[in-house]
Amino acid sequence: MASNLGTLFRISTFGESHGVGVGVVVDGCPPRIALSEADLQYELDRRRPGQSKIVTPRKEDDRAEILSGVLDGQTLGTPIGILVRNTDQRPSAYTEMQTAYRPSHADYTYDAKFGIRAVSGGGRSSARETIGRVAGGAIARKVLQSTLPNYEAVAYVKTIQGLTANVDPSTVTAEQVESNIVRTGDPAMVEPMIDLITQVRSEGNSVGGVIECVIRGVPPGLGEPVFDRLEADLGKAMLSLPATKGFEVGSGFSGTLLTGREHNDEFYMDGDRVRTRTNRSGGIQGGISNGEDIVFRVAFKPTATILIEQKTITNTHEETTLAARGRHDACVLPRAVPMVEAMVHLVLVDHWLRQKAMA
Amino acid sequence: MASNLGTLFRISTFGESHGVGVGVVVDGCPPRIALSEADLQYELDRRRPGQSKIVTPRKEDDRAEILSGVLDGQTLGTPIGILVRNTDQRPSAYTEMQTAYRPSHADYTYDAKFGIRAVSGGGRSSARETIGRVAGGAIARKVLQSTLPNYEAVAYVKTIQGLTANVDPSTVTAEQVESNIVRTGDPAMVEPMIDLITQVRSEGNSVGGVIECVIRGVPPGLGEPVFDRLEADLGKAMLSLPATKGFEVGSGFSGTLLTGREHNDEFYMDGDRVRTRTNRSGGIQGGISNGEDIVFRVAFKPTATILIEQKTITNTHEETTLAARGRHDACVLPRAVPMVEAMVHLVLVDHWLRQKAMA
Amino acid sequence: MASNLGTLFRISTFGESHGVGVGVVVDGCPPRIALSEADLQYELDRRRPGQSKIVTPRKEDDRAEILSGVLDGQTLGTPIGILVRNTDQRPSAYTEMQTAYRPSHADYTYDAKFGIRAVSGGGRSSARETIGRVAGGAIARKVLQSTLPNYEAVAYVKTIQGLTANVDPSTVTAEQVESNIVRTGDPAMVEPMIDLITQVRSEGNSVGGVIECVIRGVPPGLGEPVFDRLEADLGKAMLSLPATKGFEVGSGFSGTLLTGREHNDEFYMDGDRVRTRTNRSGGIQGGISNGEDIVFRVAFKPTATILIEQKTITNTHEETTLAARGRHDACVLPRAVPMVEAMVHLVLVDHWLRQKAMA
Amino acid sequence: MASNLGTLFRISTFGESHGVGVGVVVDGCPPRIALSEADLQYELDRRRPGQSKIVTPRKEDDRAEILSGVLDGQTLGTPIGILVRNTDQRPSAYTEMQTAYRPSHADYTYDAKFGIRAVSGGGRSSARETIGRVAGGAIARKVLQSTLPNYEAVAYVKTIQGLTANVDPSTVTAEQVESNIVRTGDPAMVEPMIDLITQVRSEGNSVGGVIECVIRGVPPGLGEPVFDRLEADLGKAMLSLPATKGFEVGSGFSGTLLTGREHNDEFYMDGDRVRTRTNRSGGIQGGISNGEDIVFRVAFKPTATILIEQKTITNTHEETTLAARGRHDACVLPRAVPMVEAMVHLVLVDHWLRQKAMA
Repeated sequence: MASNLGTLFRISTFGESHGVGVGVVVDGCPPRIALSEADLQYELDRRRPGQSKIVTPRKEDDRAEILSGVLDGQTLGTPIGILVRNTDQRPSAYTEMQTAYRPSHADYTYDAKFGIRAVSGGGRSSARETIGRVAGGAIARKVLQSTLPNYEAVAYVKTIQGLTANVDPSTVTAEQVESNIVRTGDPAMVEPMIDLITQVRSEGNSVGGVIECVIRGVPPGLGEPVFDRLEADLGKAMLSLPATKGFEVGSGFSGTLLTGREHNDEFYMDGDRVRTRTNRSGGIQGGISNGEDIVFRVAFKPTATILIEQKTITNTHEETTLAARGRHDACVLPRAVPMVEAMVHLVLVDHWLRQKAMA
Repeated sequence: MASNLGTLFRISTFGESHGVGVGVVVDGCPPRIALSEADLQYELDRRRPGQSKIVTPRKEDDRAEILSGVLDGQTLGTPIGILVRNTDQRPSAYTEMQTAYRPSHADYTYDAKFGIRAVSGGGRSSARETIGRVAGGAIARKVLQSTLPNYEAVAYVKTIQGLTANVDPSTVTAEQVESNIVRTGDPAMVEPMIDLITQVRSEGNSVGGVIECVIRGVPPGLGEPVFDRLEADLGKAMLSLPATKGFEVGSGFSGTLLTGREHNDEFYMDGDRVRTRTNRSGGIQGGISNGEDIVFRVAFKPTATILIEQKTITNTHEETTLAARGRHDACVLPRAVPMVEAMVHLVLVDHWLRQKAMA
Repeated sequence: MASNLGTLFRISTFGESHGVGVGVVVDGCPPRIALSEADLQYELDRRRPGQSKIVTPRKEDDRAEILSGVLDGQTLGTPIGILVRNTDQRPSAYTEMQTAYRPSHADYTYDAKFGIRAVSGGGRSSARETIGRVAGGAIARKVLQSTLPNYEAVAYVKTIQGLTANVDPSTVTAEQVESNIVRTGDPAMVEPMIDLITQVRSEGNSVGGVIECVIRGVPPGLGEPVFDRLEADLGKAMLSLPATKGFEVGSGFSGTLLTGREHNDEFYMDGDRVRTRTNRSGGIQGGISNGEDIVFRVAFKPTATILIEQKTITNTHEETTLAARGRHDACVLPRAVPMVEAMVHLVLVDHWLRQKAMA
Repeated sequence: MASNLGTLFRISTFGESHGVGVGVVVDGCPPRIALSEADLQYELDRRRPGQSKIVTPRKEDDRAEILSGVLDGQTLGTPIGILVRNTDQRPSAYTEMQTAYRPSHADYTYDAKFGIRAVSGGGRSSARETIGRVAGGAIARKVLQSTLPNYEAVAYVKTIQGLTANVDPSTVTAEQVESNIVRTGDPAMVEPMIDLITQVRSEGNSVGGVIECVIRGVPPGLGEPVFDRLEADLGKAMLSLPATKGFEVGSGFSGTLLTGREHNDEFYMDGDRVRTRTNRSGGIQGGISNGEDIVFRVAFKPTATILIEQKTITNTHEETTLAARGRHDACVLPRAVPMVEAMVHLVLVDHWLRQKAMA
């Protein structure tokens, strides 16, 4: 099923939404990195349901238990097993979905692929699967920051449907993003975005948007042409998150409207440091980091599970209608911000270790 | 350097632009697939320089020699080695680049990563590296079509800078695309696009755009959640191509402007086949193909190498100016169309074999 | 740290001897395979300490909890997480080893590699790590037997130090092996072997030996030349078990005493089945199974941890002496039998799935 | 078909015995390593047919052409493609084998697996495939010696059938081994071994033996428990060579005759260096190098292809007899010595790079 990611720093996630629990095994973490359950919990709390009025009210503590690989607050260099037990399960909310496929959800394709499916809670296709990623990402960040003290990734909500936040990726801080429940970096957009999500939710509908992310403190030289270009691995990591439909780095799709002369980033010397005057490259050239901020955007579609009645079919291929019940996110973006950052850490730490091996 | 791709159907490409040659080893190709050098040559000819007046006039025959893995027109199940020798090299055109870094090219980042660089022809960062991919993709296509007779991937130029082709992905044919040198599917846009490229080129400038691709005949069930989702692997494959800045599938970035009710694809029965009335999912749900056409778009930036003078620095970190010489593409998109298709074939064949193993 | 094994059927083990627990994530298990915790427990009970008078008296229930990937007794095709909590820990027995390196154990090399070490219980270097393998192997066996009903692997103790069991690999049964606590297939050797182990143990010493294994019901065609030959992957799997020093297949080292004429296995037809009259090849030719029984042997050294005083050094590089305390196996072979079988299942299921993909 | 090996330093070999040629792509080689075709040729000459009167008289120059990855005598950090064209092919010698399966050769199993087979020259199952390994190994050695100046691997013929060389692994030199065509380290055994091979060959028969290898200059800390133990990866590498039947490290199978007290290697301080007084561990403890010489042995069976008539079957499953013709090695061991060393270099360089990443 390919729940593995990474060449040297490898994670293997496991778990269904309504099973015993979800978790991850992190293999290839260097030894002697300071690590505690609190490091994991901070990120898991940013991801968990019930954290604010605009996310699903499911009540999950999402307490991470470190099963192995850490002793007296330090990593051993051995695999780090992490388990989060599931607690708040209401399988009754999934009665109709036992037979009816949710439009644009994974219900039908899981059946088509596996011939079996954990209906309750969405099983493995639930966003609950990302707990293992977020826990793994928290470890990856600790590894990176142990050597690269200026390393950080700051993701934030750039748009919700038609609402666009005005954020400068070169100055936005994690504190600014974390100061509001929608996790945007533009104070003026906090209330409008909250209002929009609240409104859409009250209608039993859903809404999507774009998350932007800036990565700072990455030295030049990370990324492995040809296939494991840094933007290719970042793109894959982001597109592996549930509900994503697009990824762009630097100038992205709008960069296609410029000519080469307009698009190219001139080099100059900033003291003894090589810099570019503009950053349409988004911090990556030829698949390799150039030392500038890495900037990218990810498109998240409106959540598939809505409470409005829709036409669909059953698993025995009869036409029917379905109005979902249960407690679902009307907009995944606020909770997706830590997921995006986690995937960044996982990609970067792997490339960092690979470069260490070759340098 | 990570020039490997694939889990079961694996390619390893090699070669610098101005070295002995470029090529690929394809490992994991099933036995008894009909294969000839002509199968490869057809795709390589679509990729090669000098094929039309709007691409680089470099004269490369790009003749593929099959070194192994094929006997009497059939694959043996053993690795298929393929070599294309380089012929038309003019290292003199790279004199200035020996020291000056091209803005937004890989010159600086290769030096930062490797501490050494094959300047002439761009070395490994040259688009010439994609020859191995195109040859490998041609083999992948043969494998897929040997079992899935309706399988095909049709890529085409959707936009060049501000010019947008009007193409219906559900009906466009490979013949239509191949009938014009710009490889767009909209007859009305052929001349405007050719004129634009010609104009930009005459100015020593460059231009980018968007390639759209439709994949047909893919059965439901391909794609491996969690990390190896079909869109994630397609995204990575596309973003590993030179000059790419973005990838989106189905509704993509513009899908974020819809609500869930508007975005969801209703299921219905078409005879005994499960279908969706719309295809905003782009043929993939939960990371797994649903049997509808897979549709995605890739953004290509304007080529970095332009003949206009730009400010930059040297490899000894002094500020300078550079106006490139040599024979470069002012727009890579017409030649990128077969590259996109090749990457599709490589991703799909790998997922096809993986699904065969599990089913 | 590389606690992953397999291409399609992949296991990731985790856990230290005296940490929270040990376990495994099995990724790539096909869906709809019948599986219960009892399936795992049977094999874990064969592996666990305290099972008989000739193994370590540590009291571990080794109860396996399935965390994910199984619903209503069937695999889902998603990762199967398994956890066994540690219960009987006596860290006081490891006081001396906090500083003194056990000769021929992993104490020194773990420090040399990681710069940190979980002293208590041996941490990750403990044979307790094999719990994840045995659980994963039990699943692998279920997958294989669901399609290959005659598939089985029977391992047994062939020698303990100088004592050699007389066992015919072509007829020995699992029941015969399991009928005695030393797990040999020769009734005449049961008491002498038990006596030897008991004697050696009473002296605080240890003893090794050879395990032989026969694999039946494997169809021709499994194994991937060149590097992933079946004997190469079996050899790696066995040599990855603690305390192993050698591996041989078929005629092995003694086959080097024959000429080609004497060694070659003549083909003949047994009805419509291709057979060989002898089996010096051990069921594998050119790295690929030929349909005959696969037979191999593994050498296990005498356990490193003994209670007799030995000269050694401390972790601050001072010379000292050490007499281990604690409850250790004087002979690992009876408990290693299920480990060997588990590794066989893991190797075979991976090759079986790989061959399914290509056929 | 799995012709890839390695995690960071990865080789992909290709080629059939009687096709265009054989070769390798080496991916993950660090940049700025001095490398020339002469470095490869030295090792290829030790491997090639026709080098002495006791090996097959096939006349192959085995000239290596570096296709990529090297510029002005230095590696670029990009994939190194290497091609050796086949020249001396006599397909007529394989007429009978078109239908008759050679006993104990790969003829039958290749047909069983692939349903197709390159008969002439043995195709991919020919020892000619090892050219890519030997070339890759020569590069690996350069990488290792660029940082570890005392690193070396010396393999030598330990036994030919019943003849045993008396060689001290701690003092034997490459010059001593290379001074005689049988490549043993015992001057007294050179003539007896040559005589035996000559005699066996004159009878159209074949003979096997054991190669021993010592690896020096390996620092403590290489090897990745759990599955990628150093001895496990060495074992897999050796057992992936044609005609191998066994592998043992340090005390190996005979170590099972000792008690723990007799077998354990006491630690002591040699100045400021940690040493062991004996080396029954063979330089590896807990899967990790301990800084002592690594010593192992590999069993090679007598070659399957003999000129004596044997009973066998045809590919249409009729019983027949076969006496091979053609020019075959009566004993592969003298030519296998550089193959063993090459596999050592490939395993060690990969573990060296992996440890660099984690340290």
